[in-house]
Amino acid sequence: AYTTDELRALASVLERRPEVLILVDEIYDEIWYDAEPLANLLTVAPDLRPRVLTVNGVSKTYAMTGWRLGYGVGPAWLITAINTLQSHSSSCPSSISQAAAVAALTGNQDVVADMVETYRERRDLVVKLLGDVPRLRCTAPHGAFYLWINCHDAIGAITPDGRILRSDADVVLYLLEDAGVAAIHGAAYGASPYFRISFAASDDVLEQACERIAAAFAALV
Amino acid sequence: AYTTDELRALASVLERRPEVLILVDEIYDEIWYDAEPLANLLTVAPDLRPRVLTVNGVSKTYAMTGWRLGYGVGPAWLITAINTLQSHSSSCPSSISQAAAVAALTGNQDVVADMVETYRERRDLVVKLLGDVPRLRCTAPHGAFYLWINCHDAIGAITPDGRILRSDADVVLYLLEDAGVAAIHGAAYGASPYFRISFAASDDVLEQACERIAAAFAALV
Repeated sequence: AYTTDELRALASVLERRPEVLILVDEIYDEIWYDAEPLANLLTVAPDLRPRVLTVNGVSKTYAMTGWRLGYGVGPAWLITAINTLQSHSSSCPSSISQAAAVAALTGNQDVVADMVETYRERRDLVVKLLGDVPRLRCTAPHGAFYLWINCHDAIGAITPDGRILRSDADVVLYLLEDAGVAAIHGAAYGASPYFRISFAASDDVLEQACERIAAAFAALV
Repeated sequence: AYTTDELRALASVLERRPEVLILVDEIYDEIWYDAEPLANLLTVAPDLRPRVLTVNGVSKTYAMTGWRLGYGVGPAWLITAINTLQSHSSSCPSSISQAAAVAALTGNQDVVADMVETYRERRDLVVKLLGDVPRLRCTAPHGAFYLWINCHDAIGAITPDGRILRSDADVVLYLLEDAGVAAIHGAAYGASPYFRISFAASDDVLEQACERIAAAFAALV
């Protein structure tokens, strides 16, 4: 997550470029583990408001991914344009999803804190289980439910069947094919040499996955 | 609806133009009032199958418009391309809608026949109520729940406040503003001088709307 200082630095560039529109994706804003609140661009730089579109949805905060319901807040002219485009493509999201999202957003929010606490425990579980795996390094994330794992020390290593791991893409293919664990290579996000795993899964699944990852990296030479 | 003869004539053109892909919109296929089944392009011209995409959905047959769930049947290469595009725009329809659509499509279909019978009664009600309205002519449709009303004899007429109705667009604006009835002008479909009303409404609403339409046209000079 961006810190207040990072957002301030971003804002100082954006303030000099008034032609740039800004999309702020806050989809993980409630899945946050730190005591200090998540920094927000519009708090740091309220003058940017007329050209900021903030997007969010019920998929993460309420684990309602299947309902396919997102929303945005921004300047009226932009929302009007979005409505015009949307009304000619999908017409609207499911009305049942809309009602469910209203129930989620206006209902008791204790469920969110409970869920975040469970994610925190899973984050700590995965960080602990992967902490001693050879060639891997990771740090606990401040929010969301993904772990970015540095695999720099595995690049150039050789798999049991003699393949050389030349990139993080090779690393995730090795994990998929030899360990049965699906991860995403950092290059897909412009972030090599890392790979990403999700810890939005049951403790059992996470323990089994970490065991398989550990065995796969221990087998490299 | 197209008759078998009309579809045969269309197919004979399409057979000479193999580069043309064909989209068959069957969304109203079950809302059909005639004893003779609705004619179908692929029954008339099965050779066209490799380039026909047939689309349908649960919005009309099961009155599940709000669930936003449609589907298509066509050649594998085209469905694959649709999936590729769709997975990068909306990902997928709501999973809850998908489950509801499966329930609708695999459940007892008697509800459909009951609903069609109600639509038929409403069609006949509206055709009867509008049958004697001056300047209007309409015939009962074979399917769906729309009535196309020929307003040729109203073009050039003058409203109580002195406006001249120069087109079917003027007619529907007059109905909207003076009678509080929403209709769609035929020009929007390339079908002047007609306007379209829906009879997918309660008997009470339909009776009131027809009274208002009758009064509005009786007031023209």
